[in-house]
Amino acid sequence: MNLLDKKVLLAPGPVPVPPQALLAMARPVIHHRLPEFSAILEKIREDLKYLFQTKEDVLFFASSGTGAMEACVANLFKSGEKVIVVRGGKFGERWGELAETYGLNPVYIDVTWGEAVSVEVVKKALADNPDARGLLIQAHETSTGVKHPVSEIAALTRDTEVLLVVDAISALGVYPLPFDELGVDAMVAGSQKSIALPPGLSFVALSQKAWQRVEENNESPRYYFDFRKEKKALGKATTAFTPAVSLLYGLSEILNRIKEVGLPRLFAHYKRLSGACRAGVKALGLELFAKEPCEALTIVKVPEGVDGAKLMKLMREKYQVTMAGGQAKLKGKVVRIAHLGYQGPLDVIVALSTLEMALTELGYQLPLGAGVAAAQKYFLETEEE
Amino acid sequence: MNLLDKKVLLAPGPVPVPPQALLAMARPVIHHRLPEFSAILEKIREDLKYLFQTKEDVLFFASSGTGAMEACVANLFKSGEKVIVVRGGKFGERWGELAETYGLNPVYIDVTWGEAVSVEVVKKALADNPDARGLLIQAHETSTGVKHPVSEIAALTRDTEVLLVVDAISALGVYPLPFDELGVDAMVAGSQKSIALPPGLSFVALSQKAWQRVEENNESPRYYFDFRKEKKALGKATTAFTPAVSLLYGLSEILNRIKEVGLPRLFAHYKRLSGACRAGVKALGLELFAKEPCEALTIVKVPEGVDGAKLMKLMREKYQVTMAGGQAKLKGKVVRIAHLGYQGPLDVIVALSTLEMALTELGYQLPLGAGVAAAQKYFLETEEE
Repeated sequence: MNLLDKKVLLAPGPVPVPPQALLAMARPVIHHRLPEFSAILEKIREDLKYLFQTKEDVLFFASSGTGAMEACVANLFKSGEKVIVVRGGKFGERWGELAETYGLNPVYIDVTWGEAVSVEVVKKALADNPDARGLLIQAHETSTGVKHPVSEIAALTRDTEVLLVVDAISALGVYPLPFDELGVDAMVAGSQKSIALPPGLSFVALSQKAWQRVEENNESPRYYFDFRKEKKALGKATTAFTPAVSLLYGLSEILNRIKEVGLPRLFAHYKRLSGACRAGVKALGLELFAKEPCEALTIVKVPEGVDGAKLMKLMREKYQVTMAGGQAKLKGKVVRIAHLGYQGPLDVIVALSTLEMALTELGYQLPLGAGVAAAQKYFLETEEE
Repeated sequence: MNLLDKKVLLAPGPVPVPPQALLAMARPVIHHRLPEFSAILEKIREDLKYLFQTKEDVLFFASSGTGAMEACVANLFKSGEKVIVVRGGKFGERWGELAETYGLNPVYIDVTWGEAVSVEVVKKALADNPDARGLLIQAHETSTGVKHPVSEIAALTRDTEVLLVVDAISALGVYPLPFDELGVDAMVAGSQKSIALPPGLSFVALSQKAWQRVEENNESPRYYFDFRKEKKALGKATTAFTPAVSLLYGLSEILNRIKEVGLPRLFAHYKRLSGACRAGVKALGLELFAKEPCEALTIVKVPEGVDGAKLMKLMREKYQVTMAGGQAKLKGKVVRIAHLGYQGPLDVIVALSTLEMALTELGYQLPLGAGVAAAQKYFLETEEE
């Protein structure tokens, strides 16, 4: 990186990390079995309950978010058990792959990419499959930007034998997903999204119903990701395996800061950033990909005649701005602008301005500055969180 | 600073510091009399010659830029000696205050704030004062954004008994000021401008003519800022007093990076940022303060009917963007947007966008987004440095 390079990270993970967390992570590494580290763990565990809006314990692992997804599949279900999998993007597919890897019997609800699953369709799938033991879904699909109706679905599974397992990796802390109130059974998160840390930590909150299933399950093979081991370690104010000490320093700092700001303000913040970004995209005459967009990221269709790969490369190399392109079948077709992590209104301005300049440079005709102007107007007309 | 605060520093010092330098400054502090620290000093001293474009030694002090200005006055002139002082802003006034403090006999060339000194006026002052021993000037006035014609003035003083002393605190590394080629006698710089470090280091390059004057001068009182002591220490690969170790780690890193990028590219970079910012300001129908603007900062007149203090406060508190207001007689009348330090094109977008939103919020009518659009156009039409 030369002196004139100033990189801006606007991808849906990793995300910009606030300086307080970077400094916390630079603290000397202490041994993870010392009482002083146990004290840090105890505090983190309390604060995670606030973030997940739960009275239950929240486990964490040194792993990416996928590790915690795998842990859910391995701990909550046995080989041969039926699970309903909502598949409306790359991460829905991941639930399916995990279910198949562990020999479960997945029943798929395939949803057109860019659309949310319909509550009616889920209701029917549950009725058609009375033997289903779980329902695996995303709070929103990070690949399409679409929010699924998790709270309505939770109302369907709450008092049944179906465990509702929600991938909230890029959703936790972005909009309300109150774990206890909704009656979700397992909710997965990752450090490199709204928690605004580097990648490397994953989280799982589990309901009492889920814990019962974990205890009954002596069949599925799991060792590192064994919820039972972590629960036992938690009771002793430690972790089953060596924890990611520095990331946990960062987590401790971030959780303090999240409590200071408060969840309502955090949710309002993301709503405002995503609202302004969408207003900007529309003002440019560009199309949003998601029909029911989430607040974590704004997905813009690459306009006709523009090479999506070139667009991403230009923004990354010339403007030093890293957004995310499309995944799998959306490769080259969309630009994903994340609002996650240490970002403010001016990052939305930077994102829109960069997109405008790069599209212009690629010969696409647009009203230069109009996206920025619409976002400015939105910011002026909405209250600060 | 809460989690949602994301501060942007666009003042003419301190400036944003690149992460490489922050990391270098976090290295363990070693003792400053060890051979390994001498090796760092030797390298820094070589690299400073590149930055100042000189074969002469460049001294540095643990002080703000004013310390090095004072050092010039104390080392180069004796009580009672006549010096010509160009006074076209707050920093010209500072030369005068220093000259008076050390009992010199200053002759002032007063220049309207916002205008450059005329070469003809300087020529006449030199002719009228054949006994002048020095001429004290700024490369540009950071308070007004005006560039003085230093190279033309250097041509007048070069082969005379007049020492040309240039305050280049916020100019060094921003546009060409080749020390040897111009024949400047003393040039002062600071760490917190284009060098992109935190405040705390000052620099002085001295010509042979200046050194002769230093050696002859046994009258002016000086101890910490004694050039003779520093020169002696330099010969022993050390410093006269305890140096600012961590800042020098940062300096060593930055100088490596400056050499890597090269001065021509650095100059082109600042030209492009300031050019785009000015285009943006004009597109908003706002007025630039400086008639001959420098590339280090863009100074915008606060429009009629807008409270300048309120504007600065709003940008700082709501948008978290710190630009500088006016100093002394310009208090409340201008906004100073610096391009110094670790900044790129997107910082200009952020500056203009913030100014647009804040002015709109204060009831001033402007075409929201038009400044950004003009800057975007400028960036698209000019080559990357």
